[in-house]
Amino acid sequence: LRVTVWNENRHEQLHDGVKAIYPNGIHQVLAGFLTKAGCQVHTATLDEPEHGLSEKVLEGTDVLTWWGHMAHDEVKDEIVERVRQRVLQGMGLVVLHSGHHSKLFKRLMGTTCSLRWREGTDHVRVWAVSPGHPIADGVPAFFVIPRDEMYGEYFDIPAPDTIIFINWYSGGEVFRSGCCYHRGRGKIFYFSPGHETFPVYHQPEIQKVIINGVR
Amino acid sequence: LRVTVWNENRHEQLHDGVKAIYPNGIHQVLAGFLTKAGCQVHTATLDEPEHGLSEKVLEGTDVLTWWGHMAHDEVKDEIVERVRQRVLQGMGLVVLHSGHHSKLFKRLMGTTCSLRWREGTDHVRVWAVSPGHPIADGVPAFFVIPRDEMYGEYFDIPAPDTIIFINWYSGGEVFRSGCCYHRGRGKIFYFSPGHETFPVYHQPEIQKVIINGVR
Amino acid sequence: LRVTVWNENRHEQLHDGVKAIYPNGIHQVLAGFLTKAGCQVHTATLDEPEHGLSEKVLEGTDVLTWWGHMAHDEVKDEIVERVRQRVLQGMGLVVLHSGHHSKLFKRLMGTTCSLRWREGTDHVRVWAVSPGHPIADGVPAFFVIPRDEMYGEYFDIPAPDTIIFINWYSGGEVFRSGCCYHRGRGKIFYFSPGHETFPVYHQPEIQKVIINGVR
Amino acid sequence: LRVTVWNENRHEQLHDGVKAIYPNGIHQVLAGFLTKAGCQVHTATLDEPEHGLSEKVLEGTDVLTWWGHMAHDEVKDEIVERVRQRVLQGMGLVVLHSGHHSKLFKRLMGTTCSLRWREGTDHVRVWAVSPGHPIADGVPAFFVIPRDEMYGEYFDIPAPDTIIFINWYSGGEVFRSGCCYHRGRGKIFYFSPGHETFPVYHQPEIQKVIINGVR
Repeated sequence: LRVTVWNENRHEQLHDGVKAIYPNGIHQVLAGFLTKAGCQVHTATLDEPEHGLSEKVLEGTDVLTWWGHMAHDEVKDEIVERVRQRVLQGMGLVVLHSGHHSKLFKRLMGTTCSLRWREGTDHVRVWAVSPGHPIADGVPAFFVIPRDEMYGEYFDIPAPDTIIFINWYSGGEVFRSGCCYHRGRGKIFYFSPGHETFPVYHQPEIQKVIINGVR
Repeated sequence: LRVTVWNENRHEQLHDGVKAIYPNGIHQVLAGFLTKAGCQVHTATLDEPEHGLSEKVLEGTDVLTWWGHMAHDEVKDEIVERVRQRVLQGMGLVVLHSGHHSKLFKRLMGTTCSLRWREGTDHVRVWAVSPGHPIADGVPAFFVIPRDEMYGEYFDIPAPDTIIFINWYSGGEVFRSGCCYHRGRGKIFYFSPGHETFPVYHQPEIQKVIINGVR
Repeated sequence: LRVTVWNENRHEQLHDGVKAIYPNGIHQVLAGFLTKAGCQVHTATLDEPEHGLSEKVLEGTDVLTWWGHMAHDEVKDEIVERVRQRVLQGMGLVVLHSGHHSKLFKRLMGTTCSLRWREGTDHVRVWAVSPGHPIADGVPAFFVIPRDEMYGEYFDIPAPDTIIFINWYSGGEVFRSGCCYHRGRGKIFYFSPGHETFPVYHQPEIQKVIINGVR
Repeated sequence: LRVTVWNENRHEQLHDGVKAIYPNGIHQVLAGFLTKAGCQVHTATLDEPEHGLSEKVLEGTDVLTWWGHMAHDEVKDEIVERVRQRVLQGMGLVVLHSGHHSKLFKRLMGTTCSLRWREGTDHVRVWAVSPGHPIADGVPAFFVIPRDEMYGEYFDIPAPDTIIFINWYSGGEVFRSGCCYHRGRGKIFYFSPGHETFPVYHQPEIQKVIINGVR
């Protein structure tokens, strides 16, 4: 399985707190555990030519993971359209955290993809509501994220083909946090945990879900 | 709109606490606000002949609401099958609270309809995740139920055609609490709040949702 | 119910065969039967300023119907975005025939919305596969369109929230011809019959479906 | 992958025409190509003790295929319930042809599962409407079955989680012929071709779909 891990890679350069958690960038942590899981991993970031997403790279990609946040607007429309076409032709796509507001995800969904959010110290419980689905394989009935940003309903997305996870926040919100879509011949999985100021992608349960999602 | 409100009507006879909240039975409270909303309401209970659900009653019913809990097994298979056929032919069905474990709902769903539950003093937030749906019409982004029994995931139901509400519980659980299904020519709406020891059906937001659901 | 009927209105100007069937434009035929059905109808066409779809017009529109074919590219992106936002905020949208390839529908769906097609002399059977749905109300198990263009699978759309109709073509194809979507707070209904060279919108069953769809 | 192929195995005993096509029973043909595809196959038939579906057999089964027609009523309720529970716990189920009216499928669906049907000499085109789905893998845009019984809409089933195939019949009907469901932790695939008087299960495309479905 050939996976391209795409990362905006800006917060890691600009904020010491983020750099401390992800010294080589979020993409390197994702690449690390995906490689260990047996994937053939390539990374790409916003500031590379063509954002690292040339035709050739995409042709050699079975699944693309996407993390972006502060620079969605800097992603060129032409590249967004190129990636979207590849998804419709059958490439898998795993959209992480604030990627819900990327041009790519919004173009694929057709809706605003807006949500309720609050930075804070919430702890989170991730509940599996489709325990028989391969993405929930080996994941317990629920697991805890000690601290993460709150992403809550109403989440303006098309009704997912399958909802895998629903989040509970100590502050009082819920969120459809693991959502699957078929678009064209491609599959899309959105998974919401992963604020850059918390070590969420170092957590084994999160890694397990992303590995399952990529597969 | 001709509505038949069906109630097991046992807790109200047996438990003083329940009787205090629903002195004439849960069905009378439901019948009261549905009548005010302009429905033509009939009531039926378990201990009537044919459980009050004769062929004639069902023929004159556009929407049936169902509340049962401690005596699911006493509902005769023959009557369950009669009601199920009427739903498939086009009668609306609103299943309330512990009606998730009624023979009728389980027969229509095909799954166990089991869930996680806990009696306690949870307060609950009911979040609207399909705010454009008629059942959420006039309902805020979320509303609070001061105290209710906890019904949580995993809820073993077929993926709903539409999820209208997701509950948040102070104890840490989430629940798909408002679920719509089409079965045959009929529509089914399951709505989970309504434990008999709390005055849930006296609450205006709950009444609003049930009125919307019936319509 | 305030309905705006939008029409590209080009074929009617350019082709005598189309003009003979729709001398005042397709929009006038649609407006006619929708008015008879009790709707308050306004029409708008491509060549009007802002394509007849000013902010004010859209604010006064509960449901918009869309027919376009040869000039999809002439619809300004800014107007497409304005209409899309109104749909997400709750306006209903009925997309007719070749509107499947309009910028508006493609932006709302996120996919290519491409399909198999063939001009010819096919006759068509429109089968109701959700007979209990309001859009199929009063529509028989199937009805015949004596001649229409063939639109066939594979149709590259997101899985519809509800499929109402599937078409059978004498030439050997099938097509999901009546598809419902929720997007944001809005509802979308796509209905495929209606090639401009056949008098499809004069047919009572077609009018019935469109009236149901608008409602 | 451990597959149990269940067959009613009555037509093959009673009708010479069927015996000529399936001299050792439909189950042996299914078992044959599934074995070639690498599955570990076991067969079971109605007239064996417990219909060949003991607790032990089911425990050792990852996927069960089901063909039945004339003797649905002879399948004991107790065995139906046992199989249903195993599906809800995670066993895969492939229901073939007239299995749509089996107690098992009806109990899992909750609806009548009735359909329109006609014996005759129809030829059939099977159209793939989810070409990116694993069950359609390696299957062309459409393929032809030279002759099969007609199964048509309205098919009274819950809306499938995914529709893979839609059939076109020369006699004028359409049918959702390949339908996927999740129920509990199990997956269900219904595939309609396979009347006993035609050599449908000898056809390579049909075998391909069933092998994909089992996987």
